[in-house]
Amino acid sequence: MAKRITQGSLIGLIRDIFIAKGMNRIDAELTADVLVAADARGIPSHGVARLWRYLAGIDKGVMKSEDASVVLKETDSSLLVDARGSMGPPVSFRTMKSILDKAEKTGFSFASVKDSNHFGIAGYYAMMALERDMIGIAMTNTAALGVPTFGREVMFGTNPLAVAVPSGKEIPFVLDMATTVIPRGKIEVCEREGKELPAGWAVNEKGLTATNPGDILKKMLNREGGGILPLGGESEEFGGHKGFGLAVMVDIFCALLGGADFGPAVADSQATSARVSHFFGALKISRFRNPDEFKADMDILLSQLKNASPADGRERVYYAGLKEAENERQSAADGILLSEKVWNSIRDFAKELNVAIPE
Amino acid sequence: MAKRITQGSLIGLIRDIFIAKGMNRIDAELTADVLVAADARGIPSHGVARLWRYLAGIDKGVMKSEDASVVLKETDSSLLVDARGSMGPPVSFRTMKSILDKAEKTGFSFASVKDSNHFGIAGYYAMMALERDMIGIAMTNTAALGVPTFGREVMFGTNPLAVAVPSGKEIPFVLDMATTVIPRGKIEVCEREGKELPAGWAVNEKGLTATNPGDILKKMLNREGGGILPLGGESEEFGGHKGFGLAVMVDIFCALLGGADFGPAVADSQATSARVSHFFGALKISRFRNPDEFKADMDILLSQLKNASPADGRERVYYAGLKEAENERQSAADGILLSEKVWNSIRDFAKELNVAIPE
Repeated sequence: MAKRITQGSLIGLIRDIFIAKGMNRIDAELTADVLVAADARGIPSHGVARLWRYLAGIDKGVMKSEDASVVLKETDSSLLVDARGSMGPPVSFRTMKSILDKAEKTGFSFASVKDSNHFGIAGYYAMMALERDMIGIAMTNTAALGVPTFGREVMFGTNPLAVAVPSGKEIPFVLDMATTVIPRGKIEVCEREGKELPAGWAVNEKGLTATNPGDILKKMLNREGGGILPLGGESEEFGGHKGFGLAVMVDIFCALLGGADFGPAVADSQATSARVSHFFGALKISRFRNPDEFKADMDILLSQLKNASPADGRERVYYAGLKEAENERQSAADGILLSEKVWNSIRDFAKELNVAIPE
Repeated sequence: MAKRITQGSLIGLIRDIFIAKGMNRIDAELTADVLVAADARGIPSHGVARLWRYLAGIDKGVMKSEDASVVLKETDSSLLVDARGSMGPPVSFRTMKSILDKAEKTGFSFASVKDSNHFGIAGYYAMMALERDMIGIAMTNTAALGVPTFGREVMFGTNPLAVAVPSGKEIPFVLDMATTVIPRGKIEVCEREGKELPAGWAVNEKGLTATNPGDILKKMLNREGGGILPLGGESEEFGGHKGFGLAVMVDIFCALLGGADFGPAVADSQATSARVSHFFGALKISRFRNPDEFKADMDILLSQLKNASPADGRERVYYAGLKEAENERQSAADGILLSEKVWNSIRDFAKELNVAIPE
């Protein structure tokens, strides 16, 4: 049976499971908060459904339960961190926090984190800038499963990019997007439902339109050719080369700036950390104008967008972050609904680790 | 008859035409250089074919032949400029130059320029960072002709975004892309050729797939509803909401940070400057790592991308900036080929202004 649980109870449960796995209380709470935020915002693919992967990572020693990160280089406005296979959320949270502190003084600050693991939703870190009257930026590269325009082999990851911008009374603009046309999860849904892939999502080992979801999932995993297309789809007709460029840009900011693995070298492995890299940034609005005036203008822009006339057959226009914030409010009011499968998995972990399960 | 002309001769001719229109020599040369760079790189839509618009702008007084810009706010790492209706290229060049100088000292620097005009290709300014071992960023908003996902009215421009990254021996990565699926020019080409628009390029006044190019051009111009779709096309199936988010992001960086006009308020007008805004940025690579090591890694990445196996029926994979740089080399060797129409127009302006025409 599906389970409805309050956000606070779910964070506490996940935190206690991480503590039972050897994480310290603060890092456990941080990691739980990042995972549950994804569920609360209606992005369950990045939420507690991934708990098993985190726990398996700890068991295998490829995700360190202690934050083992070291600062490789630091200036008044920049930070280069080697996560050394630490769990993604704690090192990402601390790095973003440090960047925000630096930007208070220098206006702009950026950081690169190498040899890290899954960090949850990029938007979580970008949104940390909001209450500081800054624009927040977060990116990560991922295991390669994206195929370049006119190509046939995977050369980059889904490489998400997040930008959060403060507003006054309106819900803030929070863009949080993979630079591939779709995440892998959408292909898995097609497979489960026995549907063909629409043209423009993926190509096969010849670089031609892929229609069979099971086939492409297997070939992507085994690196036999084929993979997901960049935002803009196949060829240049709908701008696939632009999404390709954005994905490579994210790889450059995350991995090349920090001297990390990049491109097809980033691959899922049972034997090592995910070896992914992140990039974080903060821009202080007061370097340009009074933040209150800026936020008043943001309110006008966002209000115009959300009140824009919808197309025939559509209800509303959603700007980036609006739907997610509405989901978050709903989650705060009604609790988070977990599927039976996800809830059973969490409950089993809790039982195994003697962690109390909230009613 | 089409005309082939050396890059240097074309720059000189355009410069002399601008001088005859009252521009000083330096600004005339800068503006000519920016326009001709677009032709040399194979982007003639942004090249000397636009000369008539610049000259008409000077005649009407909506593009000032003298750089009338003023600095509204300046810190060690930021700059806010009011272009006061100046021509785009000179104020953009000077602002980017200033940002690069600031970033030498502070690592990161950003600028917003308001009340400007057409600035040519965004990539021109981003590429100024290359020889300084910096990553360069340039964006501009434009007159609104883009329709949000699930919407029917124009709410943002084609809002291009450029990022240039230095490399060693490989051609540098230069992403320079409109955040709409296509520029307006592609609809005009369909109209001239009597073709229907492919689904995913534009929507009509009901927010539904537009097929008639002439109809949509007229309605966009008159703001009767309908317009170009964001990168990712119609609905969310292929990520149209991502392109929508990117377009709004560019508007925020360019216009909102500087207190300029934004969204649907940016409109073509005969009576005022284009009232567009730009955003420029520079990130110094040495804040993270040794630039030579970074560029060596860039060479590996770019070499992997350009040598990636092509899809069946395709010749090669092109990373962002590769095709344009190859065009540039070709132009340097063979000269720039101008269509009869564009050449005749330039020649007529030269004659009218008693400017010598190179053989």
